[in-house]
Amino acid sequence: MSDLLLMGPGPSPVSERVRAAMSRPLYGHLDPRFLRELDGISEDLRLCFGSTAPLTFPVSGTGSAAMETAVLNLVWPGRRVLVLENGVFAERISEMARRAGGELRRLSFPYGTPVDPEQARQAMEEFRPDVVAVVHAETSTGVLNPVGAVAQAARDVSARLIVDTVTSLGGMPVTMDEWGAAVVYSGSQKCLGCPPGLGPISVAGAALAERPKDLPVVSWYLDLGLIAKYLGTERLYHHTAPISMVFALREALTAVREEGLERRFARHRQASSALRAGLAAYGLGSLVRPGSELPSLSVVSAPEDQDEGRLRQELLEVEDVEIAGGLGPWKGKAWRIGTMGEGANLDPVVRTLESIGRVLGRHGVAADVREARRAAEEQWRAVSPALRA
Amino acid sequence: MSDLLLMGPGPSPVSERVRAAMSRPLYGHLDPRFLRELDGISEDLRLCFGSTAPLTFPVSGTGSAAMETAVLNLVWPGRRVLVLENGVFAERISEMARRAGGELRRLSFPYGTPVDPEQARQAMEEFRPDVVAVVHAETSTGVLNPVGAVAQAARDVSARLIVDTVTSLGGMPVTMDEWGAAVVYSGSQKCLGCPPGLGPISVAGAALAERPKDLPVVSWYLDLGLIAKYLGTERLYHHTAPISMVFALREALTAVREEGLERRFARHRQASSALRAGLAAYGLGSLVRPGSELPSLSVVSAPEDQDEGRLRQELLEVEDVEIAGGLGPWKGKAWRIGTMGEGANLDPVVRTLESIGRVLGRHGVAADVREARRAAEEQWRAVSPALRA
Repeated sequence: MSDLLLMGPGPSPVSERVRAAMSRPLYGHLDPRFLRELDGISEDLRLCFGSTAPLTFPVSGTGSAAMETAVLNLVWPGRRVLVLENGVFAERISEMARRAGGELRRLSFPYGTPVDPEQARQAMEEFRPDVVAVVHAETSTGVLNPVGAVAQAARDVSARLIVDTVTSLGGMPVTMDEWGAAVVYSGSQKCLGCPPGLGPISVAGAALAERPKDLPVVSWYLDLGLIAKYLGTERLYHHTAPISMVFALREALTAVREEGLERRFARHRQASSALRAGLAAYGLGSLVRPGSELPSLSVVSAPEDQDEGRLRQELLEVEDVEIAGGLGPWKGKAWRIGTMGEGANLDPVVRTLESIGRVLGRHGVAADVREARRAAEEQWRAVSPALRA
Repeated sequence: MSDLLLMGPGPSPVSERVRAAMSRPLYGHLDPRFLRELDGISEDLRLCFGSTAPLTFPVSGTGSAAMETAVLNLVWPGRRVLVLENGVFAERISEMARRAGGELRRLSFPYGTPVDPEQARQAMEEFRPDVVAVVHAETSTGVLNPVGAVAQAARDVSARLIVDTVTSLGGMPVTMDEWGAAVVYSGSQKCLGCPPGLGPISVAGAALAERPKDLPVVSWYLDLGLIAKYLGTERLYHHTAPISMVFALREALTAVREEGLERRFARHRQASSALRAGLAAYGLGSLVRPGSELPSLSVVSAPEDQDEGRLRQELLEVEDVEIAGGLGPWKGKAWRIGTMGEGANLDPVVRTLESIGRVLGRHGVAADVREARRAAEEQWRAVSPALRA
């Protein structure tokens, strides 16, 4: 199983150095050395988030826990929340906001198309939301949303902005300060190349100030006010941090810093372009509106007239390559293939293409593996020539 | 730092085999092989919980997340909740129940004394709670509470029982089915010998049936109804499980099963008795009412006329041994020393005693290290002679 290649929408492949860091003997969670590691993570995460917010840390749960941290801290009964939806993860934000008692307005766009910032602006001007939520990179559809334009509109109506960067952080620019966002969060197991289990988050200083004193955050575990006291100078015990996961994230972020964000972003662009070129050679075309594709995740039509689930099962069992199927209305119709973190390299892309080609061939679908490989390699070289120096 | 000995109230020392398992290459969270590992964990956890409940799994967060899972799934606005308090962690349950909108009644007992089951019964008969919560082994005071008698009283008033076994699971008998408890939860980093980051939980089948349909669990992330669909036959995606942590817990539970629960419990009794005998030789007496001490955690008076925080700091920095101070009213007055998992052995106990003795000696406190060691070794041999065969 050590040869299993994770090319789904996360978890992405985890390097040996990150796994080795995770297996280090533990410190206690109040040990000054451990707290220094947390401080280092804060610093590296701020770089990735494009944030200067002091309260930047990994939530002790997965990306969905970070999402819930954002929602439960900013939404309370009666708060007006506008969610810009074009996929499962925005729908999840809506569900969380509904449970939190928010007065919810959903503005929905078809799967595969980005949020229209003009329609979003109109909705904001009409609904006057307290909170606006948008997903930067929709993991269910592979669509990049125009967060910059949405953020401008949100600022214009003085709404607090939540941005989900689960599938973008570490793989493409995230610019929290520029956006003026209140809370931006992510997951550890995507472009950062760490195992799942932590939800990086960055919280602007003013984000928590408006909550009425008599309405505590319903979740004690995810109460940012309490967590800030552990992370701040008080070091007040809140809950026991997941120490080994923190070691893993620290190492993953060190690798990000060593590579440099620009170079890393370029590598993700190269890998996804190469992958899509190769898949196109098999006739598996992108389902995303051109220009809105992600560097971290490609969502393409599943092979026609085939049981796509069975093909993926064979890909996993025979070829040791994991990819994912579609979600929501795209269930049974789409394939989601990640190029995240360690997976955003030519070798894993080529291995994935070759494996898919073999599976297709075994099921009688014409698949020119050599052509797919050639197309991928050509794209890999073409996208970022400046970085080959 | 590889020599750091964790003898606080968790995290406990993690064995090399568990750390190695954690660093294994990852599966995807929907991979059938991964789901089989989760099934294996369920089975082993049921053994530890004394539970036959199908919904037995590790919450994707720390022990506090498991606590919140119990509270948010059983408490909603208007539910009558009785919390039996004699320490910080019961107080935390109260705080969570208050945030969940429960009608809260707190029955408090002094630090160091166990819950009185007769007073608890009277409170139940008078208040007629929907939910009763009790902590089996209070991590803040080192007190064992009489859960069996409390459970009987709760059954007699038809209240749902929540039991916190964070500091008991894997170190002493937990008998969920016998108690007739609705939800029992724990943490991975105590007597199970796994790093922190998972919160084992077991949920009785009927526990979730009473919730009104129009009152969803406020936390989507911790909604047991949704999680059950991922763990059950549907395998419906909920959130990405913390895969590497699951590997660690699987290995830790395998070690528990190999050792056998009875033998493991005896080892915890031996180690704590040995530790307390050694500490008594230094004049550091137990703060817990006799007969209510825990096999996993000893809470003793801190050395008199000393800055106990400075002594602990020296113990950590010079001796590489971590212990903890008191919480709440016992801050600055108590030491909390764990004998959990790998720490529940003679060697770590003796090393801890020797280190404490040296630190005391350097601060002018009379401390006969040889006598402490002798007393500890004698107790170690005396407690469980039957198991030495």
